[in-house]
Amino acid sequence: MTTMPVERDAMRLALELARRGHTGINPQVGAVIISASGEVIAQGWHRGAGTAHAEVDALSHVSAGEAAGATAVVTLEPCNHTGRTGPCTEALLEAGIARVVFALPDPGDASGGGAERLRSAGVEVEAGLCANEARELISSWLAVQKLGRPHVTVKWAQSLDGRAAAADGTSQWITGPEARADVHTRRSQSDAIVIGTGTITADDPSLTARTPNGDLYDHQPRPVVIGERETPRGAAIRQHPLSPWFFATHDLARVLEDLRGRGVHRVFVEGGPTLASAFLQSELVDEVLVYIAPVLIGGDRLALTDIGVDTISAAQHLRILHTEQLGADLLMIGAPRLASRAEQGDL
Amino acid sequence: MTTMPVERDAMRLALELARRGHTGINPQVGAVIISASGEVIAQGWHRGAGTAHAEVDALSHVSAGEAAGATAVVTLEPCNHTGRTGPCTEALLEAGIARVVFALPDPGDASGGGAERLRSAGVEVEAGLCANEARELISSWLAVQKLGRPHVTVKWAQSLDGRAAAADGTSQWITGPEARADVHTRRSQSDAIVIGTGTITADDPSLTARTPNGDLYDHQPRPVVIGERETPRGAAIRQHPLSPWFFATHDLARVLEDLRGRGVHRVFVEGGPTLASAFLQSELVDEVLVYIAPVLIGGDRLALTDIGVDTISAAQHLRILHTEQLGADLLMIGAPRLASRAEQGDL
Repeated sequence: MTTMPVERDAMRLALELARRGHTGINPQVGAVIISASGEVIAQGWHRGAGTAHAEVDALSHVSAGEAAGATAVVTLEPCNHTGRTGPCTEALLEAGIARVVFALPDPGDASGGGAERLRSAGVEVEAGLCANEARELISSWLAVQKLGRPHVTVKWAQSLDGRAAAADGTSQWITGPEARADVHTRRSQSDAIVIGTGTITADDPSLTARTPNGDLYDHQPRPVVIGERETPRGAAIRQHPLSPWFFATHDLARVLEDLRGRGVHRVFVEGGPTLASAFLQSELVDEVLVYIAPVLIGGDRLALTDIGVDTISAAQHLRILHTEQLGADLLMIGAPRLASRAEQGDL
Repeated sequence: MTTMPVERDAMRLALELARRGHTGINPQVGAVIISASGEVIAQGWHRGAGTAHAEVDALSHVSAGEAAGATAVVTLEPCNHTGRTGPCTEALLEAGIARVVFALPDPGDASGGGAERLRSAGVEVEAGLCANEARELISSWLAVQKLGRPHVTVKWAQSLDGRAAAADGTSQWITGPEARADVHTRRSQSDAIVIGTGTITADDPSLTARTPNGDLYDHQPRPVVIGERETPRGAAIRQHPLSPWFFATHDLARVLEDLRGRGVHRVFVEGGPTLASAFLQSELVDEVLVYIAPVLIGGDRLALTDIGVDTISAAQHLRILHTEQLGADLLMIGAPRLASRAEQGDL
């Protein structure tokens, strides 16, 4: 890879521009046009699905002929297909761009191939500049491309012996304040928080992400309710800053498909046992978070119900990614082996 | 505490002598008689319930009058009561012993008070020499005195979600070779290994303590079977080097009382779920060992069944004493808070 210092500076600027966009269906992308003498002559970024791509946005700021012989520095490989907007490769060629430097290849089957198209039209192409920063910026979008659906984390709290509550249904609080604070932080890093109607009836949760002193985090997850029971008018979830989305279905794959179409990258499944077990049984789980309290409860209020394991060789093995002591409790983060296989790659 | 080097040497010898005895109903005790000039003139140790105590054994090796003015060095405070043998205090006084140095006070209500009795008869008494070594030597016997019953460890292996087996009953092996080797080591450190008749029917275990290459450890636990079902003639447990003891009862306190009477200090309860749960519900557990495999199983084959917890505030809290990674598995050792209260002390 041969790039000039001025191109590195332009890429840093393009990454900054990309951040002005929002996570969603499309990736965050930034573009900078520099003249043959190394001057920044235009900047652009992508504002979301249906709007101009970053390169086209940047080119819209130059007058006719101004970009001839110039270099385009882009955080993602220019797309080569016509979606809601035309292919960026053609726009770059039309403007007379002589050189393209991008950070990451486009992982899409349909949208990829831009570098090849540009090269065959005589444009100089360099890939990989600031690739790590670019990958970090759009990591959740890349995960969605790879998985074909949003990334799914299933979380539950349990006693050491796997119970979510005592015989009379009481469960507050199995785990301590440190574990609860950790859950809220992770909620705030998710795009959607999913629960079943049974949990609404049982616990009436607010599903907001709150700091230990009760303030709302800036970023709130969208509450998503799955199941056929009606959510009561007075349910706490209806006071959530983002109005809930309801799915009266048991088809979890379709729910995830729908969420992807709404730009959701990270789904946090919070309960209860029936829903967590259904996600596991459907093999739609990338990560489990198990908060384990050092107590024994016994009885039949299980944190997981049936996950379709008939014989021991069919048990769902977890690759343990992380364990951490949180107050008196233990957090174990694991990836189901099936899901983790699909994830192996350069995410 | 004022003791002479020769007395320290004698105490070390007495500790060596004590080790020749066996753990059982009575503690292991050693005694050495040294003349006024510092010569060892007799040695003795206790060989088990019904036989002479260490002091009396030592005195039996001196001729009449030889111990007059001598010092007795003993690993435990001389007893002051008439059990199956007479009080050691009287034997020492009768022999004309002028000074007694012992390591540990006798914790027994009936047998204690020996130091006081000797002092009031004009004997010089020093306590505490090599107390740590002496305590270590008879730690399991001291625990039995304190608890009023043998020390009980309940062990089980489970999936992360608290299952002992899959729906079809298969469970070999939830945990890996490192965890199984650890179980065998701990078996070899126990006096008795207790299982229910249900586990005999389901698993036909041999209950021997074996090294990873299959050899028997020198010290084998006594297999103990609790329950009313008959153990088949061909059961593997009947091939155990120590013939099994059978208790056709559900009264666990009585079983422990009986085991104590047979000199058992350390009981290792290995299963299955019904028996483990019964011990927990009866609050007869000092320590739980939970081997947790990083797998999810779901379903109804639970590692614990009902332990009598009706509401969350009644959950059995564990003080976590130790956690350890064993291959892919996690070992958690905890003490139920109730039992741990009784244990607080200088065991």
